[in-house]
Amino acid sequence: MSFVKAKTMPGVMELLPLDQVSFQRMLGVIRSGFERFGFLPVETPVLEYVDVLLQKTGGDTERQVYFAQSTGSRQQGRDPELAMRFDLTVPLARYVAEHERKLSFPFRRYQIQRVYRGESAQKGRFREFYQCDIDVIGKDQLSLQYDAEIPTVIYHVFKELQVGPFTIHINNRKLMVGFFSHMGIAEKEEQTRVLREVDKLDKRGRGRVIETLTGEGFELAADVVTQIMDFVGMKARSNGACLQALKDMNIEDASFQEGLSELETVVQALEAAGIPEENATVNLSIARGLDYYTGTVYETILNDHPSIGSVCSGGRYENLAGFYTKTHLPGVGISIGATRLFYQLKEAGLIDTNVSTIQCLVTRMDAELLADYLSIAATLRAGGLNTEVFHRDQKLGKQLKYVTNQGIRFAIIRGQDEAERGTVVVRDLANSEQFEVAQNEMVQAIKDRLAKPDA
Amino acid sequence: MSFVKAKTMPGVMELLPLDQVSFQRMLGVIRSGFERFGFLPVETPVLEYVDVLLQKTGGDTERQVYFAQSTGSRQQGRDPELAMRFDLTVPLARYVAEHERKLSFPFRRYQIQRVYRGESAQKGRFREFYQCDIDVIGKDQLSLQYDAEIPTVIYHVFKELQVGPFTIHINNRKLMVGFFSHMGIAEKEEQTRVLREVDKLDKRGRGRVIETLTGEGFELAADVVTQIMDFVGMKARSNGACLQALKDMNIEDASFQEGLSELETVVQALEAAGIPEENATVNLSIARGLDYYTGTVYETILNDHPSIGSVCSGGRYENLAGFYTKTHLPGVGISIGATRLFYQLKEAGLIDTNVSTIQCLVTRMDAELLADYLSIAATLRAGGLNTEVFHRDQKLGKQLKYVTNQGIRFAIIRGQDEAERGTVVVRDLANSEQFEVAQNEMVQAIKDRLAKPDA
Repeated sequence: MSFVKAKTMPGVMELLPLDQVSFQRMLGVIRSGFERFGFLPVETPVLEYVDVLLQKTGGDTERQVYFAQSTGSRQQGRDPELAMRFDLTVPLARYVAEHERKLSFPFRRYQIQRVYRGESAQKGRFREFYQCDIDVIGKDQLSLQYDAEIPTVIYHVFKELQVGPFTIHINNRKLMVGFFSHMGIAEKEEQTRVLREVDKLDKRGRGRVIETLTGEGFELAADVVTQIMDFVGMKARSNGACLQALKDMNIEDASFQEGLSELETVVQALEAAGIPEENATVNLSIARGLDYYTGTVYETILNDHPSIGSVCSGGRYENLAGFYTKTHLPGVGISIGATRLFYQLKEAGLIDTNVSTIQCLVTRMDAELLADYLSIAATLRAGGLNTEVFHRDQKLGKQLKYVTNQGIRFAIIRGQDEAERGTVVVRDLANSEQFEVAQNEMVQAIKDRLAKPDA
Repeated sequence: MSFVKAKTMPGVMELLPLDQVSFQRMLGVIRSGFERFGFLPVETPVLEYVDVLLQKTGGDTERQVYFAQSTGSRQQGRDPELAMRFDLTVPLARYVAEHERKLSFPFRRYQIQRVYRGESAQKGRFREFYQCDIDVIGKDQLSLQYDAEIPTVIYHVFKELQVGPFTIHINNRKLMVGFFSHMGIAEKEEQTRVLREVDKLDKRGRGRVIETLTGEGFELAADVVTQIMDFVGMKARSNGACLQALKDMNIEDASFQEGLSELETVVQALEAAGIPEENATVNLSIARGLDYYTGTVYETILNDHPSIGSVCSGGRYENLAGFYTKTHLPGVGISIGATRLFYQLKEAGLIDTNVSTIQCLVTRMDAELLADYLSIAATLRAGGLNTEVFHRDQKLGKQLKYVTNQGIRFAIIRGQDEAERGTVVVRDLANSEQFEVAQNEMVQAIKDRLAKPDA
């Protein structure tokens, strides 16, 4: 018989079980962080109608979409009606528009699901990956306080993830656009194009961006470009000093002033919420390429791994669902790309992938004691300990090797002697110690060890 | 401007936030139950290569598959290379074959993910739904003890789900097939066909199944069919009595004896694990339509809602991944169809969908006290309470209505008076009581109320 080669397509992250345990732990931290701040879960179907999904996107995105079609539909020679979501923002817009009358506003949802992009395969690019999004959607209006709440949530989540020092960079598009106007770049379309070039500063460097902005297609005056570069590169010793410097520029442009005022409100609210400035910093070079954002924008950098780029980005948008409803729905949100983050933290050695969710394994010393093993396991589980029972006839040494390989901490051993005494031997693989304990004291003894800080 | 109608396709379960909270709670119970018994998580990509996915399935399944294709691939006029998984068993087989050398056996995995079927839309049929699977896979051999462990896990999970009384019905295919042989139905293919008819007993009723088995295509003698009906309909007052009755039949067929011995081992192990007989009962009419199963088979019925049918089914199979590898991989597993289960429990009024994950909402009495509200929220969250801050200028009555609608239990209120006293007013929406408490005692006061059983 010939075999089919068992393989997955490139661009997906399929993990071995202990890595998956680590990944679930990461998603768990993100989920409970979102819930701690009062966000409610939403899940949407992976398949959306093509006309709903692609309404608001251009050709570029369209090329990265997976279309889906059942066998029946294909046989009838029809075009696909369905496609797989490529982000969680379009489904959110559709969800809010579809269920608008049943939702309470401000509507605060989190969504942790996979999204799909028909990318060509290359290292670090994923065709299937988790996004973890939070958004607050208002009806008609939405307080700027939410622009400060979003980085507050992210601060707590990243602290909890223990990924080392990080900075949430914060800027305001109105401020930037206002500055461009002040510099004589008046047309909206040109402002957006300049903004996109500025967004590439990190990747392309100052020199090449200046070259582009003074060159064909832009033809901005050299001193204008220098002033833009100086503006976005502005360094200040604190958020307060940065805001003061912006005020001292005395720029009267209305958009500039509005952006400045919004930025100040956000900075003050972050201070009131107790977020350290080193973790939430005004950075005038943060632009976000998407036209979608209209006010506050965020990017999050791991300080020791700047080359990874932003691991969590988002911002304020004027209207969520303009393609589906005439209700005006301003919002603010942010997204963690969890698959990429996990992959990169693992590459950087920042993730421990050798701790199982299983705490105890009941070994099999003597087949005649099977009923004992089942009852020991039942006691451990009733005590809240995740427990596996081994049912293969193998030497104890081999069984203990299995326990180690599986990242399980405690092996529970009983032979005829222990059976007669009503005890078990507990071997703690964390420090190769073992001790004998009465069966009815076993759960507490293990829990005591688990509670010790050196575990 | 013309709008696109915001809608989802039929056959998917998209929930409002509080229903989603309930659903997450259900998945959480299932997940922690699986982990309690030492199963490790695996997730696989939703897209598999078509030749990998469809290798082991016939035309019938193929018609229910969603094929997927990126825009680029479609433009080149190619046939789709990818399709969406329709269950979690084929991906498990591919996973084990692909990663075989990196896995420890017995390999125990759980998988909670969505699967996709291109079904025509009708009530209760889902095109996208969650499956929650556990399987234990052995290399070359696998102890029968795992056949008993699977219903032990399911017993604990369903107890924890609080879905009312339920019964896991257990049978053995070898026993059934052995009985058919004994009745003179010797050919394997015919045995399978008879088995499939027996599997329809619940839906079609005894009379019509007898009609089919004695009619064209089968032409079994009336007394043979009567004996088969009596056999599968056998009622006993206990599992022990049932096993004894089977022994007393003195049927020498080897398959019958093997099946009987296996069933006895499973029943004994369930007893040793402390599972009540009323929850795990031998039922000789349980067959499972799929050829896939070769020994023990399971179906789970909610006793008060038999019309729902089996909410959790599975069994033992001889070889998991014969299409992908020559390694012999016997296994046993079971699957909970969580989407259908949730939908039906909700229809039956067995699910409470009005309790939020959010415990506290900090109201906004006075815009000048914003910094207070942020600091109160920070204290509540640091104390482990999920907390939302309200940022709209609305009358307190309206804010409290929002709290009620959102299923949040506690509203935290502070005006200038409370600010001066360093207190907050806590309103407990569960019993419409309210009390004033010092800010630094607020967390404990709320936790005390949450801990009370009448919550």
